[in-house]
Amino acid sequence: MQSQYCVSLASIQKAHRVIHDLVHQTPVLTNSTLDKRAERKIFLKCELFQKTGSFKIRGALNAVASLSERRQNGKEVPAVVTHSSGNHGQALALAAQMQGIPSYVVVPRNAPACKKAAILEYGAHIVECEPSDQSRMETVSKVIAETKGIQIHSNQDPLVIAGQGTIGLEILQQVPDVQAVVVPVGGGGMVSGITVAIKTQRPQVKVYAAEPEKADDCYQSKQSGCLTPNRYAPVTIADGVKTSIGEKTWPIIRDLVDDVFTVSEEEIKRATRLMWERAKLVIEPTAGVGIAVVLSPRFRNLPGNLRNVCVVLCGGNVDLDSLEWLKVTE
Amino acid sequence: MQSQYCVSLASIQKAHRVIHDLVHQTPVLTNSTLDKRAERKIFLKCELFQKTGSFKIRGALNAVASLSERRQNGKEVPAVVTHSSGNHGQALALAAQMQGIPSYVVVPRNAPACKKAAILEYGAHIVECEPSDQSRMETVSKVIAETKGIQIHSNQDPLVIAGQGTIGLEILQQVPDVQAVVVPVGGGGMVSGITVAIKTQRPQVKVYAAEPEKADDCYQSKQSGCLTPNRYAPVTIADGVKTSIGEKTWPIIRDLVDDVFTVSEEEIKRATRLMWERAKLVIEPTAGVGIAVVLSPRFRNLPGNLRNVCVVLCGGNVDLDSLEWLKVTE
Ligand SMILES: Cc1ncc(COP(=O)(O)O)c(C=O)c1O
Ligand SMILES: Cc1ncc(COP(=O)(O)O)c(C=O)c1O
Repeated sequence: MQSQYCVSLASIQKAHRVIHDLVHQTPVLTNSTLDKRAERKIFLKCELFQKTGSFKIRGALNAVASLSERRQNGKEVPAVVTHSSGNHGQALALAAQMQGIPSYVVVPRNAPACKKAAILEYGAHIVECEPSDQSRMETVSKVIAETKGIQIHSNQDPLVIAGQGTIGLEILQQVPDVQAVVVPVGGGGMVSGITVAIKTQRPQVKVYAAEPEKADDCYQSKQSGCLTPNRYAPVTIADGVKTSIGEKTWPIIRDLVDDVFTVSEEEIKRATRLMWERAKLVIEPTAGVGIAVVLSPRFRNLPGNLRNVCVVLCGGNVDLDSLEWLKVTE
Repeated sequence: MQSQYCVSLASIQKAHRVIHDLVHQTPVLTNSTLDKRAERKIFLKCELFQKTGSFKIRGALNAVASLSERRQNGKEVPAVVTHSSGNHGQALALAAQMQGIPSYVVVPRNAPACKKAAILEYGAHIVECEPSDQSRMETVSKVIAETKGIQIHSNQDPLVIAGQGTIGLEILQQVPDVQAVVVPVGGGGMVSGITVAIKTQRPQVKVYAAEPEKADDCYQSKQSGCLTPNRYAPVTIADGVKTSIGEKTWPIIRDLVDDVFTVSEEEIKRATRLMWERAKLVIEPTAGVGIAVVLSPRFRNLPGNLRNVCVVLCGGNVDLDSLEWLKVTE
């Protein structure tokens, strides 16, 4: 079934062999308050505990570790480049460090200091640009020209998608009775990888994408049957999923994802806070999108025999500086 | 060895049978950043995920479920009473609710609304008193007289101590290679129960108590060999361990706890923040005391062959209202 897609079960299984000893097999936790409110059994796949604080290391590491397959004119690739100052930026920096090759992360001048610090901590070179799409793209091109490196796209690169798909393999093992998986979607790398991993093995398990109403390109695309990117830069607290799905991920989402659920900003905040307060898990709002979905009226209307639902808690990177009472006086 | 103590391995094993199906067997997690900074392998026993957000439900439930053994003149005990507005108050309220008997929690008038709400949510009756020791004790006596209930002490009741000891049984099972366990100490119920559970089975496993410098009665008692309560009401961010150890817990601590480590307020805050930021776990500062200990200079001076150390993350109940960005506008 999959030759038409950019990843296959085999490429995901291969990714699993490549990254297995280098990343965490994250635990699956449960929480009774959440079960009660969702009126189902909710399994939490805890990628917030993953190295770098999000699942992104899986894809980044698979891409970097497989660079030898992308030799340019028989030569080793000398560096990797990206322009994400978020989770993919950190993940690519660590992946490159683990594999011992240089990485360059292009970051807008005005990016928060804590993000730059995290990227530097993982040994990447930071290259500053102006805070505009044009300056960012020009800067990336310049860095590529100078370093002869290659860019690793955060959600359309097939090796990245295959890496994210390893989450799906683990869910099937850790939650054998799972009936549905809920996955936040930005560019769709994570949901595509997970979908292929699951649908090729257990087609009856549902895969649902989770999206903020304010960044609902995946929902709109599924509704219309045509890839429909967000028309304006979305404004949502779930900053990991502002990106639109793309050419590589759309066919998988179109054909294999069962449905897309959207939630409001209020729902996302409430769900995020519920997880902090009751599950004691520091999730980022992007992970709260998945929780908000299982608590939403439309999801609660799904049949009651859909008991066992796994939500991917995709990340936990938030700025804790607002916690006054934890400030240390230095 | 234990006839001289208020709990035995048998009483802890019995508690385990009593509470086993009603509380969570909490998971043990690890975190690479913490391992690196502590230069050991640190296992986190996650009691912050326990029902009510702390281990206190173990002891409270064992005490309440065993009330028939405390019949008064052959009559069932009609109610339970306590004056803790903290974790024990919530735990006793839930334990009583689970066992279907009324509970009364005496709370100072000026206690935070969120604490009262949590207690009410678990179905307890709240009885307000003036914010003074005297009013509190008088109010408890009055409630006992009126309800014919009995008071369940949060850390000196042998059934409570036996309940907390079940943490020790689980640690030995979940971390078979454990070489030391670090336990925050307030009244000492938790550390006494855990110590008896561990020392009776694996005497070579070290048990270390963890305490704020600002509430170091356990440290002072071990130093002097005499039970030495805090002389003034301690001022520490670790509000779960302001209490002094007592007559029931002191003999166990004196004879069987290997050592007591104290940490400063700065160290506690830093450790708590590290867990939020890197381990993505919402621990309360009282649990941060244990983490601060394994990161402290004195602990790091322990021999390097002490590899596998389990820290009890005893609770996760913090007030999240300071998280401005998670506020929902209602
Ligand atoms: C925490 C988190 N969740 C979800 C996503 C979305 O992943 P994808 O772009 O593969 O759909 C991202 C992307 O940055 C993220 O950082
Ligand atoms: C979170 C937490 N940790 C530790 C303690 C101390 O327990 P003990 O009084 O049994 O020593 C308490 C007591 O309230 C607590 O709430």
